[in-house]
Amino acid sequence: MKDFYIADAAQHENAVVTSYFLLSQISARDKKGGGGQYLALTLADKTGTFEARMWEDFGKALTSCSQGCYVKAMGRIDKYQGRFQITLQQMRSAAETEIDVADFQPATQYDIDALWAELNGFVDGFTNTHLQKLVRSFLDDPELGPAFRSAPAAKMLHHAWIGGLLEHVVFLLRLCGRVAPQYVDEVDPDLLMTAAILHDFGKVRELAWKTSFSYTTEGQLLGHITIVIGMLRDRMATMPEFPERLRILVEHLILSHHGRFEYGSPKLPMTPEAVVFSALDDLEAKMQNMRAEFAKAVESGKRPDDVTEFSRSMDRALLNSKAYLAGV
Amino acid sequence: MKDFYIADAAQHENAVVTSYFLLSQISARDKKGGGGQYLALTLADKTGTFEARMWEDFGKALTSCSQGCYVKAMGRIDKYQGRFQITLQQMRSAAETEIDVADFQPATQYDIDALWAELNGFVDGFTNTHLQKLVRSFLDDPELGPAFRSAPAAKMLHHAWIGGLLEHVVFLLRLCGRVAPQYVDEVDPDLLMTAAILHDFGKVRELAWKTSFSYTTEGQLLGHITIVIGMLRDRMATMPEFPERLRILVEHLILSHHGRFEYGSPKLPMTPEAVVFSALDDLEAKMQNMRAEFAKAVESGKRPDDVTEFSRSMDRALLNSKAYLAGV
Amino acid sequence: MKDFYIADAAQHENAVVTSYFLLSQISARDKKGGGGQYLALTLADKTGTFEARMWEDFGKALTSCSQGCYVKAMGRIDKYQGRFQITLQQMRSAAETEIDVADFQPATQYDIDALWAELNGFVDGFTNTHLQKLVRSFLDDPELGPAFRSAPAAKMLHHAWIGGLLEHVVFLLRLCGRVAPQYVDEVDPDLLMTAAILHDFGKVRELAWKTSFSYTTEGQLLGHITIVIGMLRDRMATMPEFPERLRILVEHLILSHHGRFEYGSPKLPMTPEAVVFSALDDLEAKMQNMRAEFAKAVESGKRPDDVTEFSRSMDRALLNSKAYLAGV
Amino acid sequence: MKDFYIADAAQHENAVVTSYFLLSQISARDKKGGGGQYLALTLADKTGTFEARMWEDFGKALTSCSQGCYVKAMGRIDKYQGRFQITLQQMRSAAETEIDVADFQPATQYDIDALWAELNGFVDGFTNTHLQKLVRSFLDDPELGPAFRSAPAAKMLHHAWIGGLLEHVVFLLRLCGRVAPQYVDEVDPDLLMTAAILHDFGKVRELAWKTSFSYTTEGQLLGHITIVIGMLRDRMATMPEFPERLRILVEHLILSHHGRFEYGSPKLPMTPEAVVFSALDDLEAKMQNMRAEFAKAVESGKRPDDVTEFSRSMDRALLNSKAYLAGV
Amino acid sequence: MKDFYIADAAQHENAVVTSYFLLSQISARDKKGGGGQYLALTLADKTGTFEARMWEDFGKALTSCSQGCYVKAMGRIDKYQGRFQITLQQMRSAAETEIDVADFQPATQYDIDALWAELNGFVDGFTNTHLQKLVRSFLDDPELGPAFRSAPAAKMLHHAWIGGLLEHVVFLLRLCGRVAPQYVDEVDPDLLMTAAILHDFGKVRELAWKTSFSYTTEGQLLGHITIVIGMLRDRMATMPEFPERLRILVEHLILSHHGRFEYGSPKLPMTPEAVVFSALDDLEAKMQNMRAEFAKAVESGKRPDDVTEFSRSMDRALLNSKAYLAGV
Amino acid sequence: MKDFYIADAAQHENAVVTSYFLLSQISARDKKGGGGQYLALTLADKTGTFEARMWEDFGKALTSCSQGCYVKAMGRIDKYQGRFQITLQQMRSAAETEIDVADFQPATQYDIDALWAELNGFVDGFTNTHLQKLVRSFLDDPELGPAFRSAPAAKMLHHAWIGGLLEHVVFLLRLCGRVAPQYVDEVDPDLLMTAAILHDFGKVRELAWKTSFSYTTEGQLLGHITIVIGMLRDRMATMPEFPERLRILVEHLILSHHGRFEYGSPKLPMTPEAVVFSALDDLEAKMQNMRAEFAKAVESGKRPDDVTEFSRSMDRALLNSKAYLAGV
Repeated sequence: MKDFYIADAAQHENAVVTSYFLLSQISARDKKGGGGQYLALTLADKTGTFEARMWEDFGKALTSCSQGCYVKAMGRIDKYQGRFQITLQQMRSAAETEIDVADFQPATQYDIDALWAELNGFVDGFTNTHLQKLVRSFLDDPELGPAFRSAPAAKMLHHAWIGGLLEHVVFLLRLCGRVAPQYVDEVDPDLLMTAAILHDFGKVRELAWKTSFSYTTEGQLLGHITIVIGMLRDRMATMPEFPERLRILVEHLILSHHGRFEYGSPKLPMTPEAVVFSALDDLEAKMQNMRAEFAKAVESGKRPDDVTEFSRSMDRALLNSKAYLAGV
Repeated sequence: MKDFYIADAAQHENAVVTSYFLLSQISARDKKGGGGQYLALTLADKTGTFEARMWEDFGKALTSCSQGCYVKAMGRIDKYQGRFQITLQQMRSAAETEIDVADFQPATQYDIDALWAELNGFVDGFTNTHLQKLVRSFLDDPELGPAFRSAPAAKMLHHAWIGGLLEHVVFLLRLCGRVAPQYVDEVDPDLLMTAAILHDFGKVRELAWKTSFSYTTEGQLLGHITIVIGMLRDRMATMPEFPERLRILVEHLILSHHGRFEYGSPKLPMTPEAVVFSALDDLEAKMQNMRAEFAKAVESGKRPDDVTEFSRSMDRALLNSKAYLAGV
Repeated sequence: MKDFYIADAAQHENAVVTSYFLLSQISARDKKGGGGQYLALTLADKTGTFEARMWEDFGKALTSCSQGCYVKAMGRIDKYQGRFQITLQQMRSAAETEIDVADFQPATQYDIDALWAELNGFVDGFTNTHLQKLVRSFLDDPELGPAFRSAPAAKMLHHAWIGGLLEHVVFLLRLCGRVAPQYVDEVDPDLLMTAAILHDFGKVRELAWKTSFSYTTEGQLLGHITIVIGMLRDRMATMPEFPERLRILVEHLILSHHGRFEYGSPKLPMTPEAVVFSALDDLEAKMQNMRAEFAKAVESGKRPDDVTEFSRSMDRALLNSKAYLAGV
Repeated sequence: MKDFYIADAAQHENAVVTSYFLLSQISARDKKGGGGQYLALTLADKTGTFEARMWEDFGKALTSCSQGCYVKAMGRIDKYQGRFQITLQQMRSAAETEIDVADFQPATQYDIDALWAELNGFVDGFTNTHLQKLVRSFLDDPELGPAFRSAPAAKMLHHAWIGGLLEHVVFLLRLCGRVAPQYVDEVDPDLLMTAAILHDFGKVRELAWKTSFSYTTEGQLLGHITIVIGMLRDRMATMPEFPERLRILVEHLILSHHGRFEYGSPKLPMTPEAVVFSALDDLEAKMQNMRAEFAKAVESGKRPDDVTEFSRSMDRALLNSKAYLAGV
Repeated sequence: MKDFYIADAAQHENAVVTSYFLLSQISARDKKGGGGQYLALTLADKTGTFEARMWEDFGKALTSCSQGCYVKAMGRIDKYQGRFQITLQQMRSAAETEIDVADFQPATQYDIDALWAELNGFVDGFTNTHLQKLVRSFLDDPELGPAFRSAPAAKMLHHAWIGGLLEHVVFLLRLCGRVAPQYVDEVDPDLLMTAAILHDFGKVRELAWKTSFSYTTEGQLLGHITIVIGMLRDRMATMPEFPERLRILVEHLILSHHGRFEYGSPKLPMTPEAVVFSALDDLEAKMQNMRAEFAKAVESGKRPDDVTEFSRSMDRALLNSKAYLAGV
Repeated sequence: MKDFYIADAAQHENAVVTSYFLLSQISARDKKGGGGQYLALTLADKTGTFEARMWEDFGKALTSCSQGCYVKAMGRIDKYQGRFQITLQQMRSAAETEIDVADFQPATQYDIDALWAELNGFVDGFTNTHLQKLVRSFLDDPELGPAFRSAPAAKMLHHAWIGGLLEHVVFLLRLCGRVAPQYVDEVDPDLLMTAAILHDFGKVRELAWKTSFSYTTEGQLLGHITIVIGMLRDRMATMPEFPERLRILVEHLILSHHGRFEYGSPKLPMTPEAVVFSALDDLEAKMQNMRAEFAKAVESGKRPDDVTEFSRSMDRALLNSKAYLAGV
């Protein structure tokens, strides 16, 4: 556990702190006016980043630490041109055993245990025992279950944080729970919720998030849809009683959930559950994207009731209507 | 009120009936084996169509009745190659005053008064009095209100029946009511429901449904989106206290509800309400389309658990998953 | 085995023949000039179709035989307006046990045993024993192997005949064998040929070809790409020694072989083998399409050196350049 | 009125000037060789931009002036590496009352009064008094009329300068005047010219150009097409005698003038006037784009007879054919 | 020269006429009530089509005449179910020498000589003698010139009639003449008119119009753009003094005139002349399409002020605004 | 011939060298700590680039040499932060006569004479003497032949080096030689190889490669497809015996070789040769692109068995499967 987080710099102004950081950038620069070099660094943890300078005795630091490594550093916090920075006195490479990776990655703002409990509550409510058993076989898997609890939902876009996948799935389950009664004659709620839980399960192998978030080679070559189809087949091999038609419907829900060929779905949604599910998954992702864009706009200095810059992920500019109305 | 409906033919087999019909097709044909001509006709009412034949004394019928007219006809019901038909003894043109158009058009299976009451209940629940007053000014309009009660929602696709527009709107309000709580921090439920009520209101002038369903010239040149924008501006002229920003958000919701440029929306959804609304409107329309395709497939002789023929409105084939599972 | 094939009608003009047929169409019609009805039928076998008429005593035939059934029929061949037809004296429904389905389906013009031997010869030549064992597990499967020998490659387009899948695969193997040496530094020939053999294997479950060619429900909901991924996983479960990276490359080859998202490939080809394979598969299919279009044009009365009608499968008109040059 | 414009720097080399500027960029930098900081600034007016440096006593300037403000500054002009710059001695923030915004915005090269007179001359020539009265109600509006005289036609692309909208409209009127006689049997010239005047009128509310050119929130949420439809309805409310069909045709001309859905037109041009108008509007915009690209290429050092760089607004590179031929 | 045209049938009701026709359709049918067969035929000339019947002695007619041939026929005109038809007494195949093809093809309603003179007047007005000489070399070519006078401009769409190409070119020249002065600073009017005359010249080899309108094989494989590039190169070989840059500009105008890649233009318009020309060519074609659609709608029984059926060539429905306004 | 190449810097560390270079970049900078300026330069030859510094006496160098020129320079090689650089003592502009351009451009790694011989060997093997004579007329042309030997195949993408066009053509000929026997019944191998040799011949005028690689104005306005059509017509004028149909097929092969309209092909491939050729040309280009991307990824520090960055030319990321498997 870290003692100091970058977001708390203000409380430590002019004090010396010692903590672990992720070394984002490092370069040696000439001192202005000659007289040798100094180190310019950027340090990061899960709460943010700040600049660091090391003016002397950095030879050892330079040789032992490189970009992307964890470091232990001691220095004094001060403020320069309105921003906090740190002037380092010592810095060394940190061993993995010293580090709790969770200190260095953005994480869901929700309690993971509570999300997990809510998810299991939904599964407890299933009336279809085949589907319940199938979903349990994923959640209770000693390897997949814990990975699913911590995985991000994306490398860069919506829910790109630790626990993001679980968060996305639970929000989606809630939405499915709200909408299913509207289509009680056509839609099986257990099938819909099975899709919500399994559709992105392949991301636990598509993405790697040990240090930074990235795609695995398997993820790039196969994609999370095919990966989860594979996981499903492995489990099916142990569930010979699972009805064939039910299996086909579950696989179809996963295959078609992106809703369009160009988004990597090899099939369009053909059943009522698949049509409802792909619509709700898309809606949930868009709403989370909007929240992120609104926050980003405010951070970058926009007024909350202004239209945001053009959002590439949404292919349009956005407006926080609540703030816009309040701004009258 | 008609005494006899085509769907009830089986109960009148070999009996003589007298009723009003819409004359869908009429042609004179040579009798097989010579000996003059006979009339081959197709008669319709809101419950279906059947074939008619008139073998003699049809000169007056032929000159007074033409395709698309209403007729009064007397004849005997019998069965031919497994289908009911009618052999006419008399037929004459019917005056509009004799006809209740409602007997000849497909209509919603729901009670229009009940749908209307449910709709008004939603409006009563608004907390935003500006929006409430705006919506009331549409519903209470002596011309627009009744038109809105009876309008179909389309010429051919989903909800192409009398009362179809109201039915679509009420179902959509229910769905909005279910989903709004999920996005309580971003979405104003009154704005969402205002969009649900007004988004297709322009269809009362885009479509004509006095006898058959068709597009008006204004509808083809302007489209229902622009028509309702015009109605809104006319009402706004009498509501100077209506907040400017609220007006802009309402207009944006209407403009963007088709969700894509190529569907005739000049703007993409940019606010949380607009993103949610266009998703739910699309989902409701697709689900109604699916119901219609499943019914059509069964009527054309498909097994309920078979994949349907390719659906042009959905751009794919469909499967009734409930029937498919039950068919195991 | 049938004694008489429709294509041989000319040799039996004015003779009475007895044989089995597929009943494509049947309807009762009024005789011209009154005096009751007759049966108008269309009969088919793998060599073509012709019209049939049955003027008398057809009551039993009418009740026992319906469209899509096999029948046994006796009648006299004659010529009417330039075409051969048959006037039936007797017709009855035929039991499945009387029928050799092969008599009623178009089939490859090549010898299936020879194609199969050539295919196995390619596999014998593999140097990668993992891939060899994997492919053998498909070919030697008591259910999949025989299905693969007889399956068509499509419902309607290229290779839509019995044995068409095997024919397509063998031609593709030959082409891979020719091209692989050009890219000896980048392309593993065994991987390429594994793709050639397995890429369409899912069609044995995507298509049904017992009587006519059609899609299975599983085929429509999952597609042959996902089906073969499932087969592959089932086999992998029994081959724990199969290298993980090799499995990923094989799955990627299958996933990406259609080359474009809109053709149902969830991934674009990313490896040298995948790029080469999707190009060659596409080329082989196009060349077979062209052969079929040239044949169809000649059958429909076009001169061989004329441009064909617009081909929907190729999205263009075509020209048989060899015939065009020869026609000078 | 400013006394000095940046484009006249050469006439003031080595002289001290005092004038108002728009402060485009400001930053404090370390002096080379130590010894504190200096200010690096970019100053702008409607004739261009140049660099400024302030070496001393800039504390007050730094605190009172920020990027995007108007400033009053005194300094000496000199030349550095071939470009003029100014070394500031004093700079302070300027009040809006000191500023004539016209000094800081690019403006049409044509005389606005002359363009306005020409526009009114076209309107005087109308034979359809309904259309004439409608157009006059826009031009004579005490708010809209003056805004229309000064508005730019775009934020960044063609005619992005003060008076640009009026300039575009007048050029378009000339073009309509030339082309209308070609289609005298199909096209009503007054309708065509009404479209030319009104089609972009909504830009007076879609764009803001008080200091810099930008989109209003209303502009982004509704777009200029819907805005002008609203203006039109407001005016129609006072013209009950305006023929309904004529109104529909005018609205259709405005709705369809972008010619394609993906450009934000909710309707394709369906009448002869609409087809002609959208073609001519597109042509005029493209020709103005080409002029701008040719000028930009020469400014950036290209030879006039060279192909330009790839133009994003035209999606291609361009060639000034006149210069190309002259360059032989 | 034919003595009788189908459009004049009303003037010959109940009279016997003898004339030449194009035999569009021919089939032998059973007489109702037995008693043998009769011939049902469709006859055509440039003014229209009508039905023909031949009840007796048609053996020789049947063997000597086939669909697509010219025939000489004698028969009596009468009216049946509101349409004129002819009951034939004699019919024989007609030799090509008896036929003036012009009697059987739709032709421009304008005087070809007058169009030709107008075209040459435009060329006389060129100031650029290189271009003038180039254009003359096409028009004066003993093979190409006459072909250009009679060629249709298309197989089926706009200007699909004899003289249609010349008509299209002359109308386009007029439009170029109107628009060129608007762009006097950028556009060379001689270049623009050269494009107007040459851009579709390749159609004289792309199309065949000896009996019916069709594509040549060369036309289908190369297209009229490449064909005219070839013609141009052949002429250039004899004009060594023709400036290289001018040749490139002319070729570019031809290559780019379709304005989009998907319409078969290998280059987008990059010069002012090319941008103007492709816009005007597209506009002229669209206006001619609209005229044709309006006429077709009236012929099929639509009211002139109604919206037409969906036009495939225009990808939308159309409205004759002039008739719509007059219909108030 | 240069005495020293940049790639050989390591062998000359701390030694003084004199050689010719292409001056890629030049700028004067302030010395750190004051005391005047120095020159920062980038020098290039065909083997790479390195940085240069000139600290004194650079007045003459600065005035006589500019970016894009050839220079003769003398200086000392040393290593700075792991990279070689040169400290210049003298530098002057070099006359074109001193320079062998081949020293400064990337060139094919293959022997051009050997490629040329292999190409001619293919032509010797033609059995169609018309095609053989046609191809020879290109290769033996005193202007076109040598240009074809040295031309790059592109400005930036695949084969963008001296001899790249010839290299691409020879590799393509080999591939055609491998594939043609597969389609012996449909494809004329001489036609296929003629296409391989001529399809990109227009690049000798589309591209300029005297100093750097760029497009000519003719190339941008006409494109290499139209340019080679022109060359072909010029040659055809001297070969009156060349069969018309054969000419059309050759032209079609060239026109359609890009395979899609949006890639600038005005026709889709319609003959067997055209379908095969466009597939093989595309495959060869893609494989060469992959090789280049793999090399670039390794140069930029990626592991060989990692997925590459997103490749814009391939519109996807890529994986070197051979390295990936070897990396297990």
